[in-house]
Amino acid sequence: MTNDDGITAPGVRTLIEVMSELGAVVVVAPDKPQSAMGHAITINNTLYLNKISDPQAVVTEYSCSGTPVDCVKMAVSEILHRKPDLCVSGINHGSNSSINVIYSGTMSAAVEAGIEGIPAIGFSLDDLDWKADFSPTKKFVKRIASEVLKNGLPDGVLLNVNFPKLTENEIKGIKICRQAKASWVEKFDKRQTPSGRDYYWLTGEFINHDKGEDTDEWALGNGYVSVVPVQFDMTAHHAMAQLNTWKL
Amino acid sequence: MTNDDGITAPGVRTLIEVMSELGAVVVVAPDKPQSAMGHAITINNTLYLNKISDPQAVVTEYSCSGTPVDCVKMAVSEILHRKPDLCVSGINHGSNSSINVIYSGTMSAAVEAGIEGIPAIGFSLDDLDWKADFSPTKKFVKRIASEVLKNGLPDGVLLNVNFPKLTENEIKGIKICRQAKASWVEKFDKRQTPSGRDYYWLTGEFINHDKGEDTDEWALGNGYVSVVPVQFDMTAHHAMAQLNTWKL
Repeated sequence: MTNDDGITAPGVRTLIEVMSELGAVVVVAPDKPQSAMGHAITINNTLYLNKISDPQAVVTEYSCSGTPVDCVKMAVSEILHRKPDLCVSGINHGSNSSINVIYSGTMSAAVEAGIEGIPAIGFSLDDLDWKADFSPTKKFVKRIASEVLKNGLPDGVLLNVNFPKLTENEIKGIKICRQAKASWVEKFDKRQTPSGRDYYWLTGEFINHDKGEDTDEWALGNGYVSVVPVQFDMTAHHAMAQLNTWKL
Repeated sequence: MTNDDGITAPGVRTLIEVMSELGAVVVVAPDKPQSAMGHAITINNTLYLNKISDPQAVVTEYSCSGTPVDCVKMAVSEILHRKPDLCVSGINHGSNSSINVIYSGTMSAAVEAGIEGIPAIGFSLDDLDWKADFSPTKKFVKRIASEVLKNGLPDGVLLNVNFPKLTENEIKGIKICRQAKASWVEKFDKRQTPSGRDYYWLTGEFINHDKGEDTDEWALGNGYVSVVPVQFDMTAHHAMAQLNTWKL
């Protein structure tokens, strides 16, 4: 198990609780928030691992000074010394639907596990609140993780699972979806330091251009849990014929 | 133009030289090396932009304190105030073929431009040396960039271009390729701080599992420039039917 909000995030506790019902759990999570770190890895700096020695701990937990992707690499190589049966990442505080799959540290950790041949699922709840109620997600997390353990996943495929901010009774079910075509229109908040130098905060507005009813955005907006199969072969195979007509 | 090796990298100078023959160039590049930053963006820290005031400068250049993806966002929003006709990233010191597309800051900047609807190309040379000879790449960079300016690119597609470490005469031509199925097997170099605490350096070995002769790895190994069309819809569409048979 890993995440990108860091080992102290409430979302990781819900995931530990559910996964402990399915098998032996080892957590390797960042020692600080690593949201929006994408698929960053640490190659120009040192990495530290710290075993959490909480006598109340029900599972084995480590914090790592690196990114979510570093956590997966360290877990496989330095802690487990084998590939686990399943890698789960999250539960993220905030949705990682649509194009957010590419910015998200939570999803990039799951993608890294997929690259390494480990069945992997990233879980996210569409609620940024640190005190978000993760309890409605539990039965769905267990059901989806159980199916992946039972059936495996196609070669080169992992899952991006997002939960709407609803009670368990309000959630209508689970839908297999495609990633909606959407993007962020960035807005920079320009300010001045006390000494008068300009600086910026990155903010933005999420714009969904996609009217399809088979997308993750549609599912979340209509009361469903969205499950998108994700691949890391980024080749646009459909574009190859056209490029081959160019005079290169 | 942007890159991930930082604004002082020699690779960016070659790209400025070529692109200046094709149009007005604005450079917004990281103020320090940002290799392997993937699609990371800066949301929990401030960003600074610094206009380079070198009287010898032939193009407008800015350094940015953020990641390569931040550079693209700042360029569009705070400097150009419009979408440029083309975004080029690189020339990277080191190959970004195969799965490296996902770790690379150079490629993630091009992907970000693609997400924003800007025709985009990432260029990389298979030579990590800071003093690498980029001159053999020039005529190919110009040819590929010119074709993209002339023809545009299919919706949601950008290009990942890699050059072999060869002289201009040795390069056999340009091949449109798919991303090879390959991955890194990580090895951590475990050391101790002077005070006795364990720390790690991430290293690894690149393993190509793919015997296909239509891949970027094959092209580079056989004397060709590889051009892979890249998409950021990460949906594994081929896996949806199978997932729909699950009891969720």
